[in-house]
Amino acid sequence: MTNKVTAYVNPVGSLDVLSKHEVSQLTDSKHKQLQQVFRLCALAVLNTGNDSDNSKHIIEQHKDFDIDILQTDRGVKLKVINAPSNAFVDGEMIRGIQEHLFSALRDLIYAHNRILNSGHFELSESDDITNANFHILRNAGVLNPVKYLNLVVCWGGHAINRVEYDYTKEVGYQLGLRSFDICTGCGPGAMKGPMKGGAVAHAKQRMVDSRFIGISEPGIIAAEAPNPIVNKLIIMPDIEKRLESFARLSHAIVIFPGGVGTSEELLYLLGILLHPNNKDMPFPLILTGPKSSRNYFDQLNQFVEATLGKRATKLYDIIIDDPEQVAIRVNEEVKKVREYRKENSDAFYFNWRLHIPYDFQRPFEATHQDMSELNLSSQQPVHNLAANLRCAFSGIVSGNVKADGIAAIEAKGPFKLKGERFIMDALDHLLRSFVEQQRMKLDGKTYHPCYELV
Amino acid sequence: MTNKVTAYVNPVGSLDVLSKHEVSQLTDSKHKQLQQVFRLCALAVLNTGNDSDNSKHIIEQHKDFDIDILQTDRGVKLKVINAPSNAFVDGEMIRGIQEHLFSALRDLIYAHNRILNSGHFELSESDDITNANFHILRNAGVLNPVKYLNLVVCWGGHAINRVEYDYTKEVGYQLGLRSFDICTGCGPGAMKGPMKGGAVAHAKQRMVDSRFIGISEPGIIAAEAPNPIVNKLIIMPDIEKRLESFARLSHAIVIFPGGVGTSEELLYLLGILLHPNNKDMPFPLILTGPKSSRNYFDQLNQFVEATLGKRATKLYDIIIDDPEQVAIRVNEEVKKVREYRKENSDAFYFNWRLHIPYDFQRPFEATHQDMSELNLSSQQPVHNLAANLRCAFSGIVSGNVKADGIAAIEAKGPFKLKGERFIMDALDHLLRSFVEQQRMKLDGKTYHPCYELV
Amino acid sequence: MTNKVTAYVNPVGSLDVLSKHEVSQLTDSKHKQLQQVFRLCALAVLNTGNDSDNSKHIIEQHKDFDIDILQTDRGVKLKVINAPSNAFVDGEMIRGIQEHLFSALRDLIYAHNRILNSGHFELSESDDITNANFHILRNAGVLNPVKYLNLVVCWGGHAINRVEYDYTKEVGYQLGLRSFDICTGCGPGAMKGPMKGGAVAHAKQRMVDSRFIGISEPGIIAAEAPNPIVNKLIIMPDIEKRLESFARLSHAIVIFPGGVGTSEELLYLLGILLHPNNKDMPFPLILTGPKSSRNYFDQLNQFVEATLGKRATKLYDIIIDDPEQVAIRVNEEVKKVREYRKENSDAFYFNWRLHIPYDFQRPFEATHQDMSELNLSSQQPVHNLAANLRCAFSGIVSGNVKADGIAAIEAKGPFKLKGERFIMDALDHLLRSFVEQQRMKLDGKTYHPCYELV
Amino acid sequence: MTNKVTAYVNPVGSLDVLSKHEVSQLTDSKHKQLQQVFRLCALAVLNTGNDSDNSKHIIEQHKDFDIDILQTDRGVKLKVINAPSNAFVDGEMIRGIQEHLFSALRDLIYAHNRILNSGHFELSESDDITNANFHILRNAGVLNPVKYLNLVVCWGGHAINRVEYDYTKEVGYQLGLRSFDICTGCGPGAMKGPMKGGAVAHAKQRMVDSRFIGISEPGIIAAEAPNPIVNKLIIMPDIEKRLESFARLSHAIVIFPGGVGTSEELLYLLGILLHPNNKDMPFPLILTGPKSSRNYFDQLNQFVEATLGKRATKLYDIIIDDPEQVAIRVNEEVKKVREYRKENSDAFYFNWRLHIPYDFQRPFEATHQDMSELNLSSQQPVHNLAANLRCAFSGIVSGNVKADGIAAIEAKGPFKLKGERFIMDALDHLLRSFVEQQRMKLDGKTYHPCYELV
Repeated sequence: MTNKVTAYVNPVGSLDVLSKHEVSQLTDSKHKQLQQVFRLCALAVLNTGNDSDNSKHIIEQHKDFDIDILQTDRGVKLKVINAPSNAFVDGEMIRGIQEHLFSALRDLIYAHNRILNSGHFELSESDDITNANFHILRNAGVLNPVKYLNLVVCWGGHAINRVEYDYTKEVGYQLGLRSFDICTGCGPGAMKGPMKGGAVAHAKQRMVDSRFIGISEPGIIAAEAPNPIVNKLIIMPDIEKRLESFARLSHAIVIFPGGVGTSEELLYLLGILLHPNNKDMPFPLILTGPKSSRNYFDQLNQFVEATLGKRATKLYDIIIDDPEQVAIRVNEEVKKVREYRKENSDAFYFNWRLHIPYDFQRPFEATHQDMSELNLSSQQPVHNLAANLRCAFSGIVSGNVKADGIAAIEAKGPFKLKGERFIMDALDHLLRSFVEQQRMKLDGKTYHPCYELV
Repeated sequence: MTNKVTAYVNPVGSLDVLSKHEVSQLTDSKHKQLQQVFRLCALAVLNTGNDSDNSKHIIEQHKDFDIDILQTDRGVKLKVINAPSNAFVDGEMIRGIQEHLFSALRDLIYAHNRILNSGHFELSESDDITNANFHILRNAGVLNPVKYLNLVVCWGGHAINRVEYDYTKEVGYQLGLRSFDICTGCGPGAMKGPMKGGAVAHAKQRMVDSRFIGISEPGIIAAEAPNPIVNKLIIMPDIEKRLESFARLSHAIVIFPGGVGTSEELLYLLGILLHPNNKDMPFPLILTGPKSSRNYFDQLNQFVEATLGKRATKLYDIIIDDPEQVAIRVNEEVKKVREYRKENSDAFYFNWRLHIPYDFQRPFEATHQDMSELNLSSQQPVHNLAANLRCAFSGIVSGNVKADGIAAIEAKGPFKLKGERFIMDALDHLLRSFVEQQRMKLDGKTYHPCYELV
Repeated sequence: MTNKVTAYVNPVGSLDVLSKHEVSQLTDSKHKQLQQVFRLCALAVLNTGNDSDNSKHIIEQHKDFDIDILQTDRGVKLKVINAPSNAFVDGEMIRGIQEHLFSALRDLIYAHNRILNSGHFELSESDDITNANFHILRNAGVLNPVKYLNLVVCWGGHAINRVEYDYTKEVGYQLGLRSFDICTGCGPGAMKGPMKGGAVAHAKQRMVDSRFIGISEPGIIAAEAPNPIVNKLIIMPDIEKRLESFARLSHAIVIFPGGVGTSEELLYLLGILLHPNNKDMPFPLILTGPKSSRNYFDQLNQFVEATLGKRATKLYDIIIDDPEQVAIRVNEEVKKVREYRKENSDAFYFNWRLHIPYDFQRPFEATHQDMSELNLSSQQPVHNLAANLRCAFSGIVSGNVKADGIAAIEAKGPFKLKGERFIMDALDHLLRSFVEQQRMKLDGKTYHPCYELV
Repeated sequence: MTNKVTAYVNPVGSLDVLSKHEVSQLTDSKHKQLQQVFRLCALAVLNTGNDSDNSKHIIEQHKDFDIDILQTDRGVKLKVINAPSNAFVDGEMIRGIQEHLFSALRDLIYAHNRILNSGHFELSESDDITNANFHILRNAGVLNPVKYLNLVVCWGGHAINRVEYDYTKEVGYQLGLRSFDICTGCGPGAMKGPMKGGAVAHAKQRMVDSRFIGISEPGIIAAEAPNPIVNKLIIMPDIEKRLESFARLSHAIVIFPGGVGTSEELLYLLGILLHPNNKDMPFPLILTGPKSSRNYFDQLNQFVEATLGKRATKLYDIIIDDPEQVAIRVNEEVKKVREYRKENSDAFYFNWRLHIPYDFQRPFEATHQDMSELNLSSQQPVHNLAANLRCAFSGIVSGNVKADGIAAIEAKGPFKLKGERFIMDALDHLLRSFVEQQRMKLDGKTYHPCYELV
């Protein structure tokens, strides 16, 4: 994989043609930051199949990678310079990767011009954030009037073992046989397995409009490159918008074994569903894994019960070692969601009614200070505690795999987290088990925690 | 046509789903004007096949027409109330009309939110106006990377006689046999004939992706309802943006006999092509009609020569009574355009390089004062004179068929135009011939001029 | 149109690739007759738009026309030599005509190998004839499992006047608005009008899978060249198989004014529907025309009543001057057909249950002897009389427009028909009125009858 | 797999509608044999995923399985009774399996009516056999005029180990990345692996018209059920027509490790290519496997050299452990095939020019007598020896896995083969190595040879 390729690439997929102004943004020195983010995302997309989850390392490895944009008679064209050779076959870029490249371009330009710098959205208000998300997703072509609800979001670790991975494939297969499309966060492990299984099932069912949606964000994409099975890649501006997109697009969510990232996602969702406004909304949520993961889910369940209470544990089902049952259950539950949306004249393609408080939308940047100031006590509404626990996990993810997070830890040492005793104990217990089970990192080396519980 | 129908209509065609915010704009009392424009355009679309070109009259006839927008599980839905019955078959809206309805909605919402009120475009600057046009057209789905150049814009009168109409069909047929798509300004007469002929030819050639593009604007659409053959309807915010869209989308332009509207279009184009910046750009422009129209084109040609000079008359060819030759010539000339764009790496789908001075982009509202202040003298660059003559014709169109124009004339009497003698003489001569040839209005009554040459 | 074109043409449409054996049939001297029939059909197809209905004349005019078949790496290729130039645009064959050419090839080879010379079908048995028809139609790709019944067969004259022609267009338009597909016998007049109207309506309704089926046979195709709107051309081996195909494919039949050919079709159908076995089967049959055709239908109705009795006149409705009502009625009646087929588990795409006696299937070749021996008396079951009257009209069609019929008349003088007095009187009356109304031939010259009533 | 399902199934895929006559064949007692063959093939298709290769055993296991055919308004319908449950998801048949069911029906009816009992083909003549094959393949929809040559036939054992299986997947993946379609003989092992790999590659390349062609025959299908990835299933009447189809459809052939079936295929092909008539025809043939298969290919190569001579070994390349190289080589060689076919105006979709002597086409039924009479001596042209060796292997396949072959062996003991000493030694050596390497049967039990070398 030391070979590098320089090539010209034409647009494919859902990128509309670009205006002269948009092309100039990608060449003008005034728009340095946009260009850097695009270069980073492009590298991630092209770097598919690599086996590192260390963004910083990947970026350093490809210092000579670059990407230019050119105006031509048929639209725009990209020149990729010193790209990883495994994105190519006999000098031609693999078509799926080519599509990802232009999906990244599409989302970054749209977010830059029409969302972040347009003055059109007030991004400190909850409604406007949701509206902005809606616009990005619509522009990406994933909001379509549909007849059936069939999008299952699958969450789970990127660093899972072979048995767990095969299990995620089997669940994807059983969902796929029942015509469900799959949405994950891109990357390897539990984010790839369900799509692989789903793709085989869709082939057997001769489905032709399968959607394998991958939702990423610039900070994580380098560590979790989209697998080419993803046929709709979306890059949201930040992790909170990514999480909200999962929540509003999904008709059901399945959670596989994972590490801190998966815990972040579970806490995010539980926090929202615990909010009084969402009390009566059906929201299928299933935790599942192979026999060997029973212990893992017991610990996770205990942690939820200890910190958020029994009401939280009732929001999900745990199904161990039964992929067919997972798919059958999802099928049943989604029918209730359909009924609910019809009764309330809600859109099928976007869950407008789900109440997501601003606390869950505000971008959390994991600095040492912010991490140390998180309020991890029971003296607050339970959904607020969930929001803060979610931030704690988010910070640990950043310290583990994101380029700036790793840099911050290298510079200042581990994050310090503090809070009420019983919460810290539960947290300590859970994190230790992740380390023991090697759920923190891909490389298999001894794990040096990027956090301390104080 | 006395029957009226009330019905619910689901979205079809290229309207994306709407956000909650966009739906609310169409119901909220804060957005009265947007709603009124939509109601007007919807009425025009539904009123297809009517034989009046008096917008004011049409609007008065349908005072009880209304349209509501509703949010549903599958997206939005429209309720049309007291709509003209000929838009329906056995109670079901004709699918082509249904598409037009949602095209109108798409363009009005987009222009309202993303162009006019977004703060993103500086609409007093030429580049930004062009960019805005590009965005509206892109959002309407008419800018696609294409392999061949095949869009012919056809201009000509809505009030032409049967022989002329049949001729426009035959030209459309010959263009269609050669795989050309047709773009016109919607409405009857020369704007419908080429599409009808083109559609038959495309059927014979088994073309499946035919584009029959109709470009309108809110002020004119009521008088020139889109024929349902139009399968891409676009509503630009004003007449200048509509004209610029024609100029930038077209690969060739064919002009049939017409009246003041057609003269406006010809002058607009000649003015631009006379600008020094556009000197070397190939731009196929053919004036054509049946034998009986020879006189008409002689007069038009004399007017152009008298006012803009011989250089202007060299910008077009006149072909009398030879539809096949028109198509063959267009075919040859478009090849040169293709070469030119390839050499300059220009887009095939949008003529960025065409220089359109701000004078031709600035919305001209035909008030009595503005009309009387038009500089119609030879003491200015010839392209400026063309711009001002274009405005004079534009005002007359408005006084003839637009609702507010008619109202202004009713209130204050005819517009007064003044200028250099030889120009006024040429103008007088041309306008008189239009009146004599009944090219002013559809209804066939005695024509009362809405202008006076002073 | 004296220009002639020689060109190579690649297969398009539904011709499968040919075997080496099939290719050799079209070149080998052993298969002279097949080659001649193909040459004739090809000429007819290419001669579209010509205004003669005299097959003999057309063939003589194009003595130097020829067609070769060539084997290539991508399949077969045709070389057409001295073809009429109006089948081409700038040297390229019009795609619709190209499809017709290969449809002719497909049907002729199939009928030759798999039906007529296969030994697989016993063509003197009613069931096997029906089965053979089924196989030809299936091979032509017109038998598809459908959800709705929407095929209306339109019959009527090729030599109708402008008012009648416009009326057929309007009926086709109203049918098309209601999603009906059209099937006719190819050719001009009432066989083209409904398709033209239907095509416009389908465009407005954005229907993309329109079927405009033309069913011809080698003896008639030269006189009734398929209009390029026909997008499924089928060439049945003889006129009886063509008539049976109409009857079994149709979900409703509409008959416009016509001449002897149309009378032949009406009698064929009445004869079948009068058969006791078909007593309870719903079979929508509507005779319709503009105001000016009222007289025509009165005469036809009187003829039917006089010869076949009142029961026969109850099998159809006559609707004068109301295209919309025709379409509404067809719509209603077809629903009953659908119910009937569902109840009896009959196929939607092929009316197996319709009983067609062998007398209606046996090829009738109009020789002077056979014509003179037709039993035109009331001393037989009424459906037999209908069958014989049908043959009488068939012979007259042949004498009017078919190459061998015309030759026979030139050689031996008019056919002699004899029969019971009141029948001959009715026949005489009807035929005279056809002559008076110029419904016999296209060319408008004085008509010399090819028959005598003895 | 103890559960059984009874269900109604509608046609999907490329089965045309059936005539009444064809439906009756599947119900009438006169056509017992056709019905039994269909029942057998249907069972095989539905039994996908089972892990037995013993046809007799499978048939006995499903004695209560049956299948009825019903005429309905929308065409035909099948009633499957006591079908294996793994063909269903929640009571609905998996769509791919449903297509296979109707493909089987299509091919059996076609072969029965139009080939075997039509009198149209003289099946004792070489040309007519080839023509019959052409007709069956054309009716199955696999002969299409194509622009590129991209069909690679993959042969190899059904009973291969995991390392070999993964290798076949990887070769399929590398071929798929280069847009090659895959054709195999259905079943597990080397017939499934390349399709799985190819399907993943096609997904990454966003290919939408992938062809995964499986060619089987009634005698083998029960032991080698088509994997649902197969999207074009074809059932040829016998093994020799199946082999000819492979040879004439393929643009290149890749052979993986296998057992006697694979040897049969290799000898069949070498015998043909050794024929003087085929001397100059490019025919890419690559033998490949993982490192561990080096020994296997050495033995096979020695056997070929010993029996057919050095000239035979030059007809193929052996590539060990380099999937990418296999695909690159195929790509290069196929370009030469393309050139050759263009030069000779040969069809791309069917290799008419390949000379297949009648000896290779004549159905060989492995009776004890025929096996014992095979001429296995060097006193004959080398391609004849190849033909006879091919029959020897064919007989052993039959004795191993086919229902009637197994029964014959059970009744009369092993087949006896005799021949020239050095040939029998080479044969003995090769067959022993297959037994040792467990390449004879799937079940892993001790293998009892169904042959004796005398």
